[in-house]
Amino acid sequence: MTTVRIAGATLTHFGSHPDRTGRDLFAEAALGAREQAGVPRDDIDEVAYGNFMGELAERQGHQGPIMAEAAGLNCPATRYEDACASAGVAVRAGVSAIRSGRADVVLAGGMERMTNQETENTTEFLAIAADELYEVRAGMTFPGAYALMQRAYMNEFGGEREDFAHIAVKNHDHALPNEYAQYRSAISVEDHLDAPMISDPVGLYDSCPITDGAAAVILVSEEYAAEHALDAPVAITGTGQGGDNIALQDRTHLNRTPATARAADEAFADAGITPDDVAAVEVHDCFTVAEVLALEGLGFYDPGEAVTAARDGETTKHGSLPVNLSGGLKAKGHPVGATGASQITEMYRLLTGEHPNSEYVDGRVGVTHNAGGTVASAVVHVLEVDA
Amino acid sequence: MTTVRIAGATLTHFGSHPDRTGRDLFAEAALGAREQAGVPRDDIDEVAYGNFMGELAERQGHQGPIMAEAAGLNCPATRYEDACASAGVAVRAGVSAIRSGRADVVLAGGMERMTNQETENTTEFLAIAADELYEVRAGMTFPGAYALMQRAYMNEFGGEREDFAHIAVKNHDHALPNEYAQYRSAISVEDHLDAPMISDPVGLYDSCPITDGAAAVILVSEEYAAEHALDAPVAITGTGQGGDNIALQDRTHLNRTPATARAADEAFADAGITPDDVAAVEVHDCFTVAEVLALEGLGFYDPGEAVTAARDGETTKHGSLPVNLSGGLKAKGHPVGATGASQITEMYRLLTGEHPNSEYVDGRVGVTHNAGGTVASAVVHVLEVDA
Repeated sequence: MTTVRIAGATLTHFGSHPDRTGRDLFAEAALGAREQAGVPRDDIDEVAYGNFMGELAERQGHQGPIMAEAAGLNCPATRYEDACASAGVAVRAGVSAIRSGRADVVLAGGMERMTNQETENTTEFLAIAADELYEVRAGMTFPGAYALMQRAYMNEFGGEREDFAHIAVKNHDHALPNEYAQYRSAISVEDHLDAPMISDPVGLYDSCPITDGAAAVILVSEEYAAEHALDAPVAITGTGQGGDNIALQDRTHLNRTPATARAADEAFADAGITPDDVAAVEVHDCFTVAEVLALEGLGFYDPGEAVTAARDGETTKHGSLPVNLSGGLKAKGHPVGATGASQITEMYRLLTGEHPNSEYVDGRVGVTHNAGGTVASAVVHVLEVDA
Repeated sequence: MTTVRIAGATLTHFGSHPDRTGRDLFAEAALGAREQAGVPRDDIDEVAYGNFMGELAERQGHQGPIMAEAAGLNCPATRYEDACASAGVAVRAGVSAIRSGRADVVLAGGMERMTNQETENTTEFLAIAADELYEVRAGMTFPGAYALMQRAYMNEFGGEREDFAHIAVKNHDHALPNEYAQYRSAISVEDHLDAPMISDPVGLYDSCPITDGAAAVILVSEEYAAEHALDAPVAITGTGQGGDNIALQDRTHLNRTPATARAADEAFADAGITPDDVAAVEVHDCFTVAEVLALEGLGFYDPGEAVTAARDGETTKHGSLPVNLSGGLKAKGHPVGATGASQITEMYRLLTGEHPNSEYVDGRVGVTHNAGGTVASAVVHVLEVDA
């Protein structure tokens, strides 16, 4: 089975782009990745594209061929959807397409346009990632769902809202030098605690923002990279995906995410690594508690320990395991259907020394973690430089 | 690379099921396929699920994990979306997942629930498969788009509405013994010509109906089938996908479907077959002209010839190339996100002698063709029995 390499990886600025269409945004990322890779357009075998809520927010389905066209391509194109894990799933599909032999070169990425809607609409649209019959009809939206998860965590393991504040403070700090980030502004623990409560204990600064943006990566087979003498030092050596019941009521624990653990087990085994090998991690911190649950699900911390690690600074850029050096969903932004690909792009930049925070990466293995809903879907990738 | 085999393949009745949820429908198909295959639930590595308009029609995204749960599974699950080609793409993803080595057993299928909406809504929801910026805003819906394609075909190649009527008459005839079909009623050429015009030259009987339904197949690796002594005589030996510009205005011809040709080239090469090897075909006849364009795109007829073949009876059950022995989208029904998987199921039944129309299949190779939008996406599969 061939090794899959990254030949190019870019993203747009994450933020509010009301004047730009979705195809504009994806084209920018895709053309950037194509230019970086130096791959002729006719060599691209397929487009693997993530988008979550475009059917509602833009009244546009069938975005695969639209985005292929926007990227200047005339090739098979498919949309992958697992809520906010859509682009992670698209990247995983690209890896499998190359490993299966059906493709040598895949453009994988995602796009979401969210700020063209009223916040109320966006909240309602995002809620379709939860169970319509058993959760949404009862009034559940995602801040409420993650509030239940954080409350269950605090009930079992302790911890205060202030402990979670450290995660938001850290991710805002990490985003400061990142030109693509939505928020490049420092916040303090006091700012976090003084901010409006959204759904107790989830406050405004526990929550990621609403974002427009796109990201794209060019994946190539080892053989293609060698034949064309591509500069592709980073390989995706592991991919894994996990699933879970979609409704919280069907879970045995609200404060554990077994889908993440399953995805990590598969990806780490695929790459032949252990958590100890990992130098940097990008996790799906749609809420601060989500970062905690992700780090525990990935096996970096035992249940109940990751919030302590955050408070103790272990996951800052100066800590033993830098988490979300990009700024994470919290500060870099979260265009939901693009996030999984943007994590791959950011990890690529971190590992190749092109990221302003690359200096904090002490090692050659990075892990990305993308989740959908209340982690009913999770996708994990292992990236290695000079592999 | 392993050969991918079908261990089970079922569908629900296609028709109007206003009293059943989407998960009810998919569970019926999935449990049927599981039972037929005799595969333990823990052996199923992933669910590849097609759905097109559920975000609008059911306000439910993230249906992958929901449908895995409905099927009694706790495994990774992803939704694939390429408009009406969604389930074809899902089956193709399942094939690649097994060929890539990431899975041994995949449950692939799709579901769509459409009759819970007013027809007006359904038409509007289906329109999101077209280009929102350049087609839908101008008032384009699918009967109109296919009317343009049929008009362009008639202008270049001749043919009358009566010639196209033969396709509808044939597909209704084929559906008569099919217990899963939405319409088991014969129609005549006169019925077709007397029926209301929808969008000239597309009349009511040129158009497929609005349908609820689901279909599922269990795909297994050759090795898994052998190890577990499964009865799996049909292999999927070829898979291909093609893309095209989504808006008709960007095509060089309105009466040709190059995405189908690209998908067929890839699938036939993958299987090592030519059109001459094929004993039966299931094509995407959302409108009668779509069947014509599909047969020409697949290489069974030269441009301008397939409508003549229909008039001459070559594609009936008694003809040289039986097309849509299931009844096709026209008479079997078209639950859009399930159709691609239902074609695989019907071809499996046809090849294994389990279909009431199996007697008309003279050979061991069948081809399925699933299209999205005005064929901006196309997926082709080659199935072989005793391969």
